[in-house]
Amino acid sequence: MNKIITIGREFGSGGRELGRYIAEILGFAYYDREIITEIAKRTSLSETYIKNVTENKPAMPFPVHTGRTFWMMMPDLNQDVQREQHNVIKEIAQKSNCVIVGRGADYILKDEKPFRLFVYSELESKIKRCMQNSNSDYENNETMTEKELKRKISQVNKARAGYYEFYTGQTWGGRLNYDLCINTTNCEIKQLAEAIANLFNK
Amino acid sequence: MNKIITIGREFGSGGRELGRYIAEILGFAYYDREIITEIAKRTSLSETYIKNVTENKPAMPFPVHTGRTFWMMMPDLNQDVQREQHNVIKEIAQKSNCVIVGRGADYILKDEKPFRLFVYSELESKIKRCMQNSNSDYENNETMTEKELKRKISQVNKARAGYYEFYTGQTWGGRLNYDLCINTTNCEIKQLAEAIANLFNK
Repeated sequence: MNKIITIGREFGSGGRELGRYIAEILGFAYYDREIITEIAKRTSLSETYIKNVTENKPAMPFPVHTGRTFWMMMPDLNQDVQREQHNVIKEIAQKSNCVIVGRGADYILKDEKPFRLFVYSELESKIKRCMQNSNSDYENNETMTEKELKRKISQVNKARAGYYEFYTGQTWGGRLNYDLCINTTNCEIKQLAEAIANLFNK
Repeated sequence: MNKIITIGREFGSGGRELGRYIAEILGFAYYDREIITEIAKRTSLSETYIKNVTENKPAMPFPVHTGRTFWMMMPDLNQDVQREQHNVIKEIAQKSNCVIVGRGADYILKDEKPFRLFVYSELESKIKRCMQNSNSDYENNETMTEKELKRKISQVNKARAGYYEFYTGQTWGGRLNYDLCINTTNCEIKQLAEAIANLFNK
């Protein structure tokens, strides 16, 4: 059975960065947005739409003015995307050792017994990280004010919690759903990655 | 400043064992019951009494039949023990690099910026661990039935949570109070200890 590491993470806590380092050290495949790209290919839906559907729980009720056809169509599309996401995650777990970030992969792959990480940090640390990072993980964040960032962090994390809880019936960040919960506030991500990689090197 | 690792732990999760291994690997001093022995020396109170006072929040109200003198005396004794515990923990943190298990040391030493671990596991894993371990950490547990063990685990953890919350105002096991929360259900304690020790070896 392949070795699989899943990472749930609070927005701004450096979970993605940690995942990348771990994958790099161990020579594991790394999956994050690649999953969205693959679902887009399979469903012919746009990546933006898929990103939205896989990062938020279904919004009910749908606006009345969109009419019955749209109302009926939405849940199906949503289900298609969820199904494909499930398939893609199952397939990549079969393919090789890997690190998978987000998308409730810990739950989807529970039979494969992944090593489940949850990455979090204090709010101030999240704000600092968002402001310092101008890479693609934190689009436009470096131009936002602290107040705007606080709101964004809160919104994204609320959406992640809602999505996870809707599709898994479990509490996002609830410690019993993870093997290791990591607070990145006072730790260097690279050093944490090396320590975690040590659990898999033997 | 000395390197200090504090360990909060659910009863039966192997937190003490993990602490011992980490201390052994790193050559750090290890403190657990030694703290009680030291408080006993300083206060001339029995270790059993101190153990009780440092593992439970004050029980209020005290039984009426013990009378006014006893009622008045109890809180003072309790305070003496808490004060001495505070002093002992502060002193050992000054002395050398160390691992300190339990006793709200993470909170008492917050100015010293300890690395704060919280160790937990699933109930079934706790029961198994208690049944398999006949060492001094799990006195008499190997002769208890599963039902009795479940009750004991629940009682001890409830007391630990109550004590911690009473004296720190923080949530016991609340992830933001720790740097790393470790689920020992599916992991080998020795390997976890080695991984954690890696964070301090550089």
